[in-house]
Amino acid sequence: MSLASFIAALTPLLEPRSLVTDAERIAPWLTDWRGRWTGTSAVMLEPGDTAEVARIVAAAEEHGVALVPQGGNSSMVGGATPPADGSAVLLSLRRMNRLRDIAPGHAVAEAGVILHHLHEAAEGVGARFPLDLGARGSATVGGLASTNAGGVQVLRFGTMRAQVLGVEAVLSGGLVHDGLGGLKKDNRGPSIDQLLIGAEGTLGIITALRLRLVPGRVHRAVAWLGLSTPGAALDLLRRVERATDRIEAFELIPASSLAHVLRHIPGTRAPLAAAHPWNVLIEAVSPEGEQPPAALLEELLGKAGVADAVIAQSLDQNEQLWRLRHSISEAERSEGPAAQHDISLPVDRVPGFLVDDARAVEQRFPGTAASGYGHLGDGNVHFHVRAPQGAARDWADSAEGKAVSAFVHDLVTAAGGSISAEHGIGQMKRDELTRIAPPARLQALRAIKRAMDPHGIFNPGKLVD
Amino acid sequence: MSLASFIAALTPLLEPRSLVTDAERIAPWLTDWRGRWTGTSAVMLEPGDTAEVARIVAAAEEHGVALVPQGGNSSMVGGATPPADGSAVLLSLRRMNRLRDIAPGHAVAEAGVILHHLHEAAEGVGARFPLDLGARGSATVGGLASTNAGGVQVLRFGTMRAQVLGVEAVLSGGLVHDGLGGLKKDNRGPSIDQLLIGAEGTLGIITALRLRLVPGRVHRAVAWLGLSTPGAALDLLRRVERATDRIEAFELIPASSLAHVLRHIPGTRAPLAAAHPWNVLIEAVSPEGEQPPAALLEELLGKAGVADAVIAQSLDQNEQLWRLRHSISEAERSEGPAAQHDISLPVDRVPGFLVDDARAVEQRFPGTAASGYGHLGDGNVHFHVRAPQGAARDWADSAEGKAVSAFVHDLVTAAGGSISAEHGIGQMKRDELTRIAPPARLQALRAIKRAMDPHGIFNPGKLVD
Repeated sequence: MSLASFIAALTPLLEPRSLVTDAERIAPWLTDWRGRWTGTSAVMLEPGDTAEVARIVAAAEEHGVALVPQGGNSSMVGGATPPADGSAVLLSLRRMNRLRDIAPGHAVAEAGVILHHLHEAAEGVGARFPLDLGARGSATVGGLASTNAGGVQVLRFGTMRAQVLGVEAVLSGGLVHDGLGGLKKDNRGPSIDQLLIGAEGTLGIITALRLRLVPGRVHRAVAWLGLSTPGAALDLLRRVERATDRIEAFELIPASSLAHVLRHIPGTRAPLAAAHPWNVLIEAVSPEGEQPPAALLEELLGKAGVADAVIAQSLDQNEQLWRLRHSISEAERSEGPAAQHDISLPVDRVPGFLVDDARAVEQRFPGTAASGYGHLGDGNVHFHVRAPQGAARDWADSAEGKAVSAFVHDLVTAAGGSISAEHGIGQMKRDELTRIAPPARLQALRAIKRAMDPHGIFNPGKLVD
Repeated sequence: MSLASFIAALTPLLEPRSLVTDAERIAPWLTDWRGRWTGTSAVMLEPGDTAEVARIVAAAEEHGVALVPQGGNSSMVGGATPPADGSAVLLSLRRMNRLRDIAPGHAVAEAGVILHHLHEAAEGVGARFPLDLGARGSATVGGLASTNAGGVQVLRFGTMRAQVLGVEAVLSGGLVHDGLGGLKKDNRGPSIDQLLIGAEGTLGIITALRLRLVPGRVHRAVAWLGLSTPGAALDLLRRVERATDRIEAFELIPASSLAHVLRHIPGTRAPLAAAHPWNVLIEAVSPEGEQPPAALLEELLGKAGVADAVIAQSLDQNEQLWRLRHSISEAERSEGPAAQHDISLPVDRVPGFLVDDARAVEQRFPGTAASGYGHLGDGNVHFHVRAPQGAARDWADSAEGKAVSAFVHDLVTAAGGSISAEHGIGQMKRDELTRIAPPARLQALRAIKRAMDPHGIFNPGKLVD
């Protein structure tokens, strides 16, 4: 590779502002938002349109310089942080933030459109984009698609994959794949669009997306209820799923997580008078003119014989209940260092995992405390193992922390689950994927990587070799 | 390659009945059902389970013998017919026809399960499998997934891709990819399952599928109405889509197609007293306890100001209206030879294509008659160009017929459409795909093919080189 010849070749091909050399402007993007990885990038490419991305990819291949695509830099697994050795350059898609088209049923958004802006634009046409998550103010649709992001509405609407109607991307050779046409049926071989979703920028650079919008203007209601076991929560989920398709979230929270929130997060209070071993938050929605969602929840919980529950009576109360759920991660950090795992399981296996496998972890690593919470309806659990008293802040990265994570991943694998439910593989889980993934999957991922990226320039060091 | 050594090596590895040598038993599967292609296969492999398929794939790579996977042999594009030169052998998945699991929300079906049997089994658990098409009595789920089949309910439920929750397949090396676990979230890189859908057996052999089932027991009603232009039909579609999500079919039929059905198909009669330039068939469904679908249709058509319409009042009348639609293909064959095209377009472009582009074809090829009918809601048109008077039966394969098809494909491409909406590429459209496909798509398809099939044994001569 020759970085100097790459930059020299690119300079006349790009608008001046597409090539950022000011180290101060680059610096904030070299470290992931949790501060776990820091990389190096001599320049930052910030193209303004797809044609510039195509020129960048062609030049990168010619000069052997790797590209690290980046959207909002909100990866949880170091997926958008360049390597430290200076062998790659950042390719920011943030300037490509136009909404090329929007209508009640779809939007065509460039990769750099921020999720929150898409939500607002969808509302503006009386629709909504049915995917939401905490990083909505910085995460971009390109990053969301590249990582097949999930979030809190997956139960009803699916992950990002289900929202993507078409992909525009720059592939090897600087060739532009244009899947934005909005064809509902197209059987010219396997879907290139689908292949790019969840590929973490390792197969090409997503530059724009055609996304589905769903009818907007729904009323929402949130219920919080106490239960004695996660099995009871699963029974309730099955009952509710049979009765209605208006449930958008079904979150399971153990007593310990709620206690941590109440202890550490100012202004929170217990939603129920009694404490329960497990809690469930359910959100229901209804369009105008149908049964109000609070009444629907009341009916569902009554029929299911739930003994202790509260249903929010205002938007403000909805928010307060959601705040309890959204504060868990922060509250648990205040309890001390922990190894956190973003895992998924077949839904039926979740209750057993949260009880039996959690106990197995604690027995194998005395002094730890293992617990899980999250999207029960998706089988997606945030499984935290808290360090023994007195552990160092970076315990998760210590030999014991790593042994804990490997043990958890083995349990997940034995239960037929995935070591990455939402966050992807990035650089954080790459070695674990290599260690655990079935041979067929690993062989296919590697073969596809080599095929789509013959010069090895797309997001090196992420996902697979 | 050495076919003899391949068979010798396989014989001790398979159950005796998994290796068919009786030429009479093989013969029916060597010709596609429309009789357009005939191939050769010295033996027919008919494995009983996934382990046998894995042994077959490993041996095939070792001995350089290609495999042509086949389900119900109902391909419209020669996708399951072996080459004539004897260089490949048929791999029938028909014996693998077990339903490994079925519950109201999903079924795990082996590749050889016939669509009609799946429908029945789903009904047996109070659910339904929301994909249906004419070949339901022979098409297998493995073939449906390998071709991403469509059908008449795509408007509401999507193509086969949307029904597949997971894929089990044998990949290069005889490695088994097991995606049947039913994980709702799994972000370990791009989806291998999705990659195999629509790949036409060229990247691996699908052996089983986890499929979604939707709640069963719905009431259905069918309306037939007359309109003056396809643009009016599109306006009606948009209105109906905004008003309800209970529409499962929206079919557009020109006066000429209806006239051919009434002329050639015994027992049919015109549904409306007056003749209209265009006709629309709409099917609505409602679950028990909601507004009956006939009332829903009446309300929708009343609000839309449709002047001339009939709503079926019984299952029998539903069937009669559907029969008019399903008989078009047969009726048009009775009118004489034609070049048929399975194309898709952005939905908004369909009306213009059916009028302006049809006229362009007729002007370019004097004596021909061009018309389209089909799934307007999906942008999927069956576009037929009837030969001039006196043309030979195989006119579609003549120089003029091929020129017509190339001209149609160019018009489709110019309109942002696809030369294969439902049927796939197979051997029939391979050269056209190579001629027309954008460079990025062709490069990606070829690179993936080489990566996933390094020994070139999976369904050679189909889709891409």
